[in-house]
Amino acid sequence: MTAKMKAAIFVEKNRIVLDDKPIPDVGPMDALVRVTTTTICGTDVHILKGEYPVEKGLTIGHEPVGVIEKLGSEVKGFTEGQRVIAGAITPSGWSNACLCGYCSQDGAGTKHGWKPIGGWKFGNTIDGCQAEYVLVPDAMANLAAVADHLTDEEVLMCPDIMSTGFAGAENGGIRIGDTVAVFAQGPIGLCATAGAKLLGATRIITVDAVAARMAVSRKLGADEVVNFKEADPVEAIMDLTDGRGVDVSIEALGTQATFEAALRVLRPGGTLSSLGVYSTDLKIPLDAFSAGLGDNAIKTALCPGGKERMRRMMEVIGSGRVDLKPLVTHRYSLDQIEEAYDLFANQRDGVLKVAIST
Amino acid sequence: MTAKMKAAIFVEKNRIVLDDKPIPDVGPMDALVRVTTTTICGTDVHILKGEYPVEKGLTIGHEPVGVIEKLGSEVKGFTEGQRVIAGAITPSGWSNACLCGYCSQDGAGTKHGWKPIGGWKFGNTIDGCQAEYVLVPDAMANLAAVADHLTDEEVLMCPDIMSTGFAGAENGGIRIGDTVAVFAQGPIGLCATAGAKLLGATRIITVDAVAARMAVSRKLGADEVVNFKEADPVEAIMDLTDGRGVDVSIEALGTQATFEAALRVLRPGGTLSSLGVYSTDLKIPLDAFSAGLGDNAIKTALCPGGKERMRRMMEVIGSGRVDLKPLVTHRYSLDQIEEAYDLFANQRDGVLKVAIST
Amino acid sequence: MTAKMKAAIFVEKNRIVLDDKPIPDVGPMDALVRVTTTTICGTDVHILKGEYPVEKGLTIGHEPVGVIEKLGSEVKGFTEGQRVIAGAITPSGWSNACLCGYCSQDGAGTKHGWKPIGGWKFGNTIDGCQAEYVLVPDAMANLAAVADHLTDEEVLMCPDIMSTGFAGAENGGIRIGDTVAVFAQGPIGLCATAGAKLLGATRIITVDAVAARMAVSRKLGADEVVNFKEADPVEAIMDLTDGRGVDVSIEALGTQATFEAALRVLRPGGTLSSLGVYSTDLKIPLDAFSAGLGDNAIKTALCPGGKERMRRMMEVIGSGRVDLKPLVTHRYSLDQIEEAYDLFANQRDGVLKVAIST
Amino acid sequence: MTAKMKAAIFVEKNRIVLDDKPIPDVGPMDALVRVTTTTICGTDVHILKGEYPVEKGLTIGHEPVGVIEKLGSEVKGFTEGQRVIAGAITPSGWSNACLCGYCSQDGAGTKHGWKPIGGWKFGNTIDGCQAEYVLVPDAMANLAAVADHLTDEEVLMCPDIMSTGFAGAENGGIRIGDTVAVFAQGPIGLCATAGAKLLGATRIITVDAVAARMAVSRKLGADEVVNFKEADPVEAIMDLTDGRGVDVSIEALGTQATFEAALRVLRPGGTLSSLGVYSTDLKIPLDAFSAGLGDNAIKTALCPGGKERMRRMMEVIGSGRVDLKPLVTHRYSLDQIEEAYDLFANQRDGVLKVAIST
Repeated sequence: MTAKMKAAIFVEKNRIVLDDKPIPDVGPMDALVRVTTTTICGTDVHILKGEYPVEKGLTIGHEPVGVIEKLGSEVKGFTEGQRVIAGAITPSGWSNACLCGYCSQDGAGTKHGWKPIGGWKFGNTIDGCQAEYVLVPDAMANLAAVADHLTDEEVLMCPDIMSTGFAGAENGGIRIGDTVAVFAQGPIGLCATAGAKLLGATRIITVDAVAARMAVSRKLGADEVVNFKEADPVEAIMDLTDGRGVDVSIEALGTQATFEAALRVLRPGGTLSSLGVYSTDLKIPLDAFSAGLGDNAIKTALCPGGKERMRRMMEVIGSGRVDLKPLVTHRYSLDQIEEAYDLFANQRDGVLKVAIST
Repeated sequence: MTAKMKAAIFVEKNRIVLDDKPIPDVGPMDALVRVTTTTICGTDVHILKGEYPVEKGLTIGHEPVGVIEKLGSEVKGFTEGQRVIAGAITPSGWSNACLCGYCSQDGAGTKHGWKPIGGWKFGNTIDGCQAEYVLVPDAMANLAAVADHLTDEEVLMCPDIMSTGFAGAENGGIRIGDTVAVFAQGPIGLCATAGAKLLGATRIITVDAVAARMAVSRKLGADEVVNFKEADPVEAIMDLTDGRGVDVSIEALGTQATFEAALRVLRPGGTLSSLGVYSTDLKIPLDAFSAGLGDNAIKTALCPGGKERMRRMMEVIGSGRVDLKPLVTHRYSLDQIEEAYDLFANQRDGVLKVAIST
Repeated sequence: MTAKMKAAIFVEKNRIVLDDKPIPDVGPMDALVRVTTTTICGTDVHILKGEYPVEKGLTIGHEPVGVIEKLGSEVKGFTEGQRVIAGAITPSGWSNACLCGYCSQDGAGTKHGWKPIGGWKFGNTIDGCQAEYVLVPDAMANLAAVADHLTDEEVLMCPDIMSTGFAGAENGGIRIGDTVAVFAQGPIGLCATAGAKLLGATRIITVDAVAARMAVSRKLGADEVVNFKEADPVEAIMDLTDGRGVDVSIEALGTQATFEAALRVLRPGGTLSSLGVYSTDLKIPLDAFSAGLGDNAIKTALCPGGKERMRRMMEVIGSGRVDLKPLVTHRYSLDQIEEAYDLFANQRDGVLKVAIST
Repeated sequence: MTAKMKAAIFVEKNRIVLDDKPIPDVGPMDALVRVTTTTICGTDVHILKGEYPVEKGLTIGHEPVGVIEKLGSEVKGFTEGQRVIAGAITPSGWSNACLCGYCSQDGAGTKHGWKPIGGWKFGNTIDGCQAEYVLVPDAMANLAAVADHLTDEEVLMCPDIMSTGFAGAENGGIRIGDTVAVFAQGPIGLCATAGAKLLGATRIITVDAVAARMAVSRKLGADEVVNFKEADPVEAIMDLTDGRGVDVSIEALGTQATFEAALRVLRPGGTLSSLGVYSTDLKIPLDAFSAGLGDNAIKTALCPGGKERMRRMMEVIGSGRVDLKPLVTHRYSLDQIEEAYDLFANQRDGVLKVAIST
């Protein structure tokens, strides 16, 4: 197959360009998906800026909505022409990590079956989905059928943003009646807010400073929103909780400041659920950690993937329990993707997420 | 009651002395216990050195074995003359923290019912048990009867060392077949090793450099012992595991070096269970943390207490599953406690734990 | 204190009457609460009918809202005149069962510290709260302050109905995206429906045949309501789920028929969370149980109590996450309680719950 | 490939015969394993007796130890000639059930991805391993390399008996210091006993009446063994526990009598972990179930499989933590398998497990 497709390719630091690439061959366990809608992630911007290294020539993007173009010879249970999504993380299902319950650390093909962040393949270790076509590995584990009544845009957050944000809430071990703080209300933080509400938190305090994000935060579940430019978030949250602190805090930015604040607002025995991608060493201040005697937990999560996770995310959308439509603020065609990167990377015009259609 | 008793009292930095004190009055929910055997903890040495602040005049010690001398008017279910232990941590049972499952962060009497490290009262916020008598608060929650066939020395590790070390193993979420690393093999680290074995870890790698401790470590469950003076423990553990890393690491010292090493030896998705009492801020190196995407957990624990926990610890001893007798290396009378502190604080003569009899 | 109060007393089978009783003395750990609002539970009707045995002369009722009249000498942290609730279950906090995390099986005062259903004391083993005053045992573990902005009726479901129904959802281990079936939509089943929604179930199918209950069921979270008089509920649920079955089923009636149906609608690996009070042996049909190889769980729950649980239930109400006001369908004064029993026991006039004010 | 092999084939009720069959073709995701050692399971006897239906002509057996003869074209990470085992349960890894953590209920290829007992394929829905060769499906998820220092017999219990018995202990949620009862000490019950010890139970009471099994039971961890022919096991266990009951009971036979007894010996809040394959409806007596209010759990388990589980089982053996060699009481060649069935099905000569070598 020498047919060509358009794809957003990492060329070098600060250059992701739309270019031609061959449409990939389909191996026995793969599926070729014609991408109908995709989006750009904050991680893609890290790649663009050279902060997260990928190979030159790689197609970027890990949030595909599309139609099955061609199935590998061994792939059963799906039909060509079917509408599907695949998660940002595409576990093999058969590595030791997967069989141990850690699909996102999938070490398929490695000596012991574990690899840090190994489940993240699209736009990281294999070609991604900001393209006309994407090859989905281990297709039987990763293709998830989209119900007819759901639009592309409605399920566009499922592959990454929603699954990640919800994992932040799940990892926190939220119980009915918990008070939860969420630091940063970008797309993932907003989904963490929605997830915390979905899991029974009865008081959610979020932190951001962008008016539009603060407004969406309230829509998705925040009971109070702290503007960190107007008040110290730790003080504000301790005041709001009358000095008690929160049961669970969720970090959704990836900085020392938010990490540390998330630790400081915990009640004894509380859990810090971290979602951010950090770019520096982190410091745990002794006093914020009860010298190691506070029965605290710090947990990190990488987006859960796989078709069952995707099915569940789409159930949430389909049920109307959570409405993530407010997250899609801008729309582009694939031809305009460089323009979309420019807007998104510079956080202009109140952008939350862009929808890229082909 | 103006009768007097002898008690080891914190006078000032570097001075704990044996002096006379009144035998305390017994409130309705208290029990007065005549101490027959107790011990000195590393934390007591921190107090001695002024590194952990307590009020001057406080009786030190939190590991009592003794006999009920007098029960408060509201205390049912026990009899005077009964042999008992109480945990280092003495939860009220009725605070919000306790009723939420966090007895060690017991905030009995505080506004919200939570207090960092609030369950630790003996020798911290109330008089401790390095004395002829100790007053046990919330006695119905804290007195645990000792079976006749168990000696004082056999149950002497239950109130703190054993409960803490085991909590390190429990907190790690050890599964059958796990590989576990334990950093430092002092008394608590040794109990963590025993706990890891008790919970089904099939390969336990411990780290220390004192020959006697390394020998006891093997007795209590270590399959391999790394001498950190002869090899870099991270490299050694990665070599021993053929590059895979461990499922769970337990930190039992309280330093940046051991904390960081414990993080670096984890396989993706692994859990660092921290027991150490830290005295400095901690650093989480970015590369040891998969930039926050490794599905890792860092958990801290304070010794679990309360009579049910003590009962379980004594069941372990009584069943012969674990033999902690090798931990008691020296014996003193209460009259000699200043001498015992001197030996223990200076870690002379291969001391692990001392037994203090009255 | 020889003052008298009115109390609803079990005289004999089919006779609960309002009569005079002495206002109880207050022990050191008790609190005397002046009841301002209470209600009647299905369990009280079992007592009335002689199906659940209690001592003659006992005051019935276990769902108190009121004002602290007098505190025991040892009770700290509360003030006389404060508005409070106490749970239907009043754990001591200090029994082995409580300290092991099973407060509802509290065996305070028993040899081993465990007693089946031992946490249920009000109107079962001690005088209950269908009276002008009720004595709350272990007051520090059981009194929960009511926020000023919440009315008696708003918190009236917290002590039992809501805590029980929510426990059914919690016990099911509901995950985001689960499909849940709830069998019977009486007050507890309705709260289980609300709890399932609160915990992230995205499809809730409930079963009942009373139009009013079916309507409230939809308000509280049911996506579909099966009328068991019009369709076989197992068939209907298997049809609605396209043959897949549900992840979690909740039984909220206490009959063989609902228990068995709840088992039959489970997907492999599913959990049956049982809330009903049964009055006959139960049968597990072999074919509904995969011969014991289906990785299924059957869990039972008794209402969780204690002040922290009550605090959490009131947080749910106060946050507006769940509105249980539709459950209170009728209002009476304590003087009319015999009339209220007559209505409630005979399920007349669409009654769900009655509010009894003093 | 028209080469022939010998295989134990189900012909009809009461007839399993050794006959010739073609050596199977190897699909892209399969592995052909030359079986070197296998065994007969109680379930195979059910098949033999016609109590568990399988298709006529099917090769029986689900416990293979062998050598990789040929790998499918898509199978990576293994080499021909490598010694391996595969579990009795061979999950695909990619079904919804697997990706949801329920590998034994694997519904690979079904509409929703769930199938009761669907993970059990060998000798049930596909040809098994009582043959010279067995085809392992989804080989990358199911082949587990055997360390050189472990003999075939040492790992022979891993595929089923050990994994199942240990699952019984794991499912019970055993905590350090628990008292556990195990009903029936056949091979699976014996492994449950070993598993309970491995997980920290400090008092294990087992029930059987065969002297040889009772002796092995003590070796593997039983502290007390009740002979049910000499004493009522419920009474005996309640006596041994001084009326308290056990924290966890494990049923390992599959009869009403053992199921009911396992329920009756539970303390309030206790868990019944069921391993037996039942052949009749079960009754839950009302009084043994606290009318549904005892906070009890009844859990069932099917043997966990997959290569990671097998790796862990072999780690247990390799570490010396558990020695299951006493379970292999008789040895046969594949040619003698009919004789082996005769012995095993009739439980003659104190047989526990037979090793069948090729």
